[in-house]
Amino acid sequence: MTDSSTNMRLKLPITCFIMEIILIILFGVLVQYDHETDAKAWHKKNHSDYDNDFYYRYPSFQDVHVMIFVGFGFLMTFLQRYGFGSVGFNFLIAAMSLQWATLMQGFFHGMHEGKIHIGVESMINADFCTGSVLISFGAVLGKTSPVQLLVMAMFEVTLFAVNEFILLSLLGAKDAGGSMTIHTFGAYFGLMVTRVLYRPNLNKSKHRNGSVYHSDLFAMIGTLYLWMFWPSFNSAITAHGDDQHRTAMNTYYSLAACTLSTYAMSSLTAHDGKLDMVHIQNAALAGGVAVGTAGEMMLTPFGSMIVGFLAGIISVLGFKYLSPLLEEKLKIQDTCGIHNLHGMPGVLGAVVGAVTASVATTGVYGNGMIDVFPDVASGDIEASYQGVRQAISLAVTLGFALVGGLIVGFILKLPIFGTPPDTLCFEDSIYWEVPGDEQSHENQLTAVRTEESEKLNS
Amino acid sequence: MTDSSTNMRLKLPITCFIMEIILIILFGVLVQYDHETDAKAWHKKNHSDYDNDFYYRYPSFQDVHVMIFVGFGFLMTFLQRYGFGSVGFNFLIAAMSLQWATLMQGFFHGMHEGKIHIGVESMINADFCTGSVLISFGAVLGKTSPVQLLVMAMFEVTLFAVNEFILLSLLGAKDAGGSMTIHTFGAYFGLMVTRVLYRPNLNKSKHRNGSVYHSDLFAMIGTLYLWMFWPSFNSAITAHGDDQHRTAMNTYYSLAACTLSTYAMSSLTAHDGKLDMVHIQNAALAGGVAVGTAGEMMLTPFGSMIVGFLAGIISVLGFKYLSPLLEEKLKIQDTCGIHNLHGMPGVLGAVVGAVTASVATTGVYGNGMIDVFPDVASGDIEASYQGVRQAISLAVTLGFALVGGLIVGFILKLPIFGTPPDTLCFEDSIYWEVPGDEQSHENQLTAVRTEESEKLNS
Amino acid sequence: MTDSSTNMRLKLPITCFIMEIILIILFGVLVQYDHETDAKAWHKKNHSDYDNDFYYRYPSFQDVHVMIFVGFGFLMTFLQRYGFGSVGFNFLIAAMSLQWATLMQGFFHGMHEGKIHIGVESMINADFCTGSVLISFGAVLGKTSPVQLLVMAMFEVTLFAVNEFILLSLLGAKDAGGSMTIHTFGAYFGLMVTRVLYRPNLNKSKHRNGSVYHSDLFAMIGTLYLWMFWPSFNSAITAHGDDQHRTAMNTYYSLAACTLSTYAMSSLTAHDGKLDMVHIQNAALAGGVAVGTAGEMMLTPFGSMIVGFLAGIISVLGFKYLSPLLEEKLKIQDTCGIHNLHGMPGVLGAVVGAVTASVATTGVYGNGMIDVFPDVASGDIEASYQGVRQAISLAVTLGFALVGGLIVGFILKLPIFGTPPDTLCFEDSIYWEVPGDEQSHENQLTAVRTEESEKLNS
Repeated sequence: MTDSSTNMRLKLPITCFIMEIILIILFGVLVQYDHETDAKAWHKKNHSDYDNDFYYRYPSFQDVHVMIFVGFGFLMTFLQRYGFGSVGFNFLIAAMSLQWATLMQGFFHGMHEGKIHIGVESMINADFCTGSVLISFGAVLGKTSPVQLLVMAMFEVTLFAVNEFILLSLLGAKDAGGSMTIHTFGAYFGLMVTRVLYRPNLNKSKHRNGSVYHSDLFAMIGTLYLWMFWPSFNSAITAHGDDQHRTAMNTYYSLAACTLSTYAMSSLTAHDGKLDMVHIQNAALAGGVAVGTAGEMMLTPFGSMIVGFLAGIISVLGFKYLSPLLEEKLKIQDTCGIHNLHGMPGVLGAVVGAVTASVATTGVYGNGMIDVFPDVASGDIEASYQGVRQAISLAVTLGFALVGGLIVGFILKLPIFGTPPDTLCFEDSIYWEVPGDEQSHENQLTAVRTEESEKLNS
Repeated sequence: MTDSSTNMRLKLPITCFIMEIILIILFGVLVQYDHETDAKAWHKKNHSDYDNDFYYRYPSFQDVHVMIFVGFGFLMTFLQRYGFGSVGFNFLIAAMSLQWATLMQGFFHGMHEGKIHIGVESMINADFCTGSVLISFGAVLGKTSPVQLLVMAMFEVTLFAVNEFILLSLLGAKDAGGSMTIHTFGAYFGLMVTRVLYRPNLNKSKHRNGSVYHSDLFAMIGTLYLWMFWPSFNSAITAHGDDQHRTAMNTYYSLAACTLSTYAMSSLTAHDGKLDMVHIQNAALAGGVAVGTAGEMMLTPFGSMIVGFLAGIISVLGFKYLSPLLEEKLKIQDTCGIHNLHGMPGVLGAVVGAVTASVATTGVYGNGMIDVFPDVASGDIEASYQGVRQAISLAVTLGFALVGGLIVGFILKLPIFGTPPDTLCFEDSIYWEVPGDEQSHENQLTAVRTEESEKLNS
Repeated sequence: MTDSSTNMRLKLPITCFIMEIILIILFGVLVQYDHETDAKAWHKKNHSDYDNDFYYRYPSFQDVHVMIFVGFGFLMTFLQRYGFGSVGFNFLIAAMSLQWATLMQGFFHGMHEGKIHIGVESMINADFCTGSVLISFGAVLGKTSPVQLLVMAMFEVTLFAVNEFILLSLLGAKDAGGSMTIHTFGAYFGLMVTRVLYRPNLNKSKHRNGSVYHSDLFAMIGTLYLWMFWPSFNSAITAHGDDQHRTAMNTYYSLAACTLSTYAMSSLTAHDGKLDMVHIQNAALAGGVAVGTAGEMMLTPFGSMIVGFLAGIISVLGFKYLSPLLEEKLKIQDTCGIHNLHGMPGVLGAVVGAVTASVATTGVYGNGMIDVFPDVASGDIEASYQGVRQAISLAVTLGFALVGGLIVGFILKLPIFGTPPDTLCFEDSIYWEVPGDEQSHENQLTAVRTEESEKLNS
């Protein structure tokens, strides 16, 4: 089952070692504790211990961390013969990405006198950036080697940081939960990469491109952790106090409404009314994506529920009708359906954010305006112009994602990364030592067959 | 495998859409941010950020949230062919219930000038109420359609809110961890519903009403998350400071003691001393239920351990001897054995709470009395009378649960909800698209058989 | 499959009941709420609610709690026929150990006027001590009865508490994340126990001493929870403020670097470059172990990454080359390879801690020195002498572990604990009621065989 081209014996160790050694050197040269993690700096001032940002953000960080490693990792284990690759490559590229993201994001907006200062907020941001890479991973799942994935991650993290810098620092957009920076970017980048890597003969692996009973249960572990902790995700880096509180609550109600519309649509679009696990595992999460931008605003639970409700409907319809079209007409082979979970809901979230921003008034936000829209609060701009900023940010993100994905897709096509052949996509045994199990049953069956044949022949 | 009566194509979407649209409209009319989630209200006063209740309760909320969706959801996946239904219907009815609970509980004790004010504490309470519905779900698991479950949830949430209001607001009882409001209510309500829905021919589905090796491991995920986070559950809405701290610790030791008595009793009651996964998965949790009322009181770790120890013993004995009797004599078919995990331990918890309350003294509680028993602290009542209040609350809860369950059971019997036939209980494929797996092995076996037969015949 | 010697019908209940009753009595006599969990004591002083240690440490406690029950429990489910034993015995001995540890640790460093005072910090310490027992459990997994495990746990907890007391209180060593007290101690204790319990004929159970496809996915749940929450583990009991913050961050980067070197080495050491799940599940965690001592120091992310990077390499090499040697030459049968995950990385962590301590300067730590090295800050000792203390502590720990393991191993050899025979190691059905599944397939195969034979004979 292995030939020399997909043998990772040298390619993977060399890639990992070179990347990690570069990371370590750059951390040695550039990275420092910030004033809340540095023993000397923290003790210079007279703080209360609970002023340390650790106590405001670390619980949210841990929830986000679970989403990245267990949430994304297990969500993708639905494939019957790619569980190791789903959770294992997710683990590998996430561990690489969060280190690289610390550097790239720090370079763009964490420099202090030539050094990158880090603490819990930068850790959350690094995990966020990693999330974007894992979204793209969902599009190419099962069709790429670990070396391809590491190379993709390296480029995508870099582009993510540039795009994020333009949106948040240059354009002054707000996007705490990342409808644009994380979801829209990750989705369209990934879709473009998988378009460039189009495999006309992927149907040779079609029999493995689906779930079995237990693999769908493993995937539900991923789904539920993403669903439960999404309120922490969207609120992790919003301002302290009412902002974190409000964002978490808006997300909670958006997801609840989304779940009901997902079940309704899944049943409605099946010819015999049966629920489809693909929809439940994915579309029920779209409500979290769609309030990623507006969640910190005064969207109200009422508004959040409407957004979540729509996101669930759009997402199921996408899985049912749009994904087959994308594959047939546009040659986009999207393994996990990221367009339906992150792409369209991300764009919806950006639009909702732009509209919500443009109608912000001091009557509603009071003195809290400064935390949500500082430039509106200071009188520098009108709220309607903040809406324009948000809309421009969506366009910029789409541009970056599509052009970036195009370029990176062609880089990944270079025949040096050990990509699997069409006949062995969605198959763990190409990159992993796989123990018995399914095979063992086959062997037993073969044994029975052989025995009986021998009896017949004798 | 599908006939028209169980086809959910119209029933489920219509139910979900109507419910969600009503919820959204009611949220639009009635619900507002409270003063800790509203930008304007929060910034009116001069707070420190950490005064926001978010930082006191959000970590506990997230633990409770995990218990509701992963804990209850996976605990029920022990059934070999009902994993999708267990975790999937749990997801659906929980998402509906928490929205409806926000309104019902808000209506009874969160109204401010005609509006329901919400924040992290109401989110926890909504999750609590949802937990009660999921307990009842355990009794009817595998024998009900998703539409039946949604209807049951709607009524149960409403009755829960009324009962809770009577207990906490009218009677002045204390029940932070919900031994009465959540566990006793949910259990006896569910038992009455399943009694009304009695199926004399359920043995036609008996071969599916059990576990397989891997499904028991999935169920252990649910068990452990419930076990680990129960200290957060019981302490989530107790008073800040020593109260939350003490409640979490009491629960921790109660559960530890309960686990040892569960293992002991499981081994002791098996004729060959082998441990039974049903006991481990369920009875080891009874210690959390049984300190739901008294956990916030000065029960001491010593007292908590005694309570947990007894709860484990009672629960295993219930599974072993009482459940078969209930089914045979009283025609109560209790799929998950909720009477043993929530029913009896809930009653035990109520009694322990009443006794502990009645012996409270200022010598023990000091100025902390005001947080635990405000009416005793203010001198309005004697501690012994607080005990009486607690005892009356148990009786009221049992009455509400049994009468409510009776009525709702008859409603669910209406032949319009697509309930499964006796032959297809505990079977996912009636409501779900189910991928291959077990079948595939059967197919392989059939193939071998056919092949061999052909050889014989030729 | 059961004979009288392994029948647990009396042995297990008696052991559990006696242990739990003794625990309850000792708690009744010795244990009291501390001033943060006691209603009267807390309300005597005029605190802010958020001064209660609960808010500083409870989120970390819950993360540690998940590591102990889900992390360790599922990490060991990789064995194909020992999932119940892995997660179930883990549950049992952890529940016992945390109660016993509360008493033992309290006896050595929590006594106040003859009483043991407990709160969230003692709960974390009890979970830590339990972790050490679970490490040792990994070495003897599948080869011991639950009674043997309970007896081992009782002795190991006691020795752990003595060793911890000597290190932290007498020698003045620092070891917040327990590279020495938890990992080195647990590993070498367990290795010595398994050495004494050496089974020359263990190969009779060899066919069960490995994983199947799904059991490796269950194990990844354990791995990922350990990996994600390790930052909470190492920082759970460090000083408030910058110390907790810094420790969590150092651990985060150490683990990320470790993951990349693990993947690299796993691929490099396989003859066809395929990744080995055993390495991914275990070696990727070594980075957390290796910064257990130095994580709270000013190790810098750069230093942490170097340590993690080395730990991953050492750990994979250990699995690949050292474990087979240990089994062959030294007769150490280490089921889970704890020497590679906890043993060597623990020693590495102790050495890194000693070196980092010995180079501490006021220039780097400022006034924060008092939190990390109080005796250096007070001028009582030089930093270099703190390094010597750390090194002596490692030697003491190794001595305690090896001698303790030797004695306890011989105790466990007494032929009264119902240890499994060589032919039934790594097999759940000896101590558990096991439902169908694998057997059912075998039965089906047998049925086919029989049917065909009958046809042939007729």
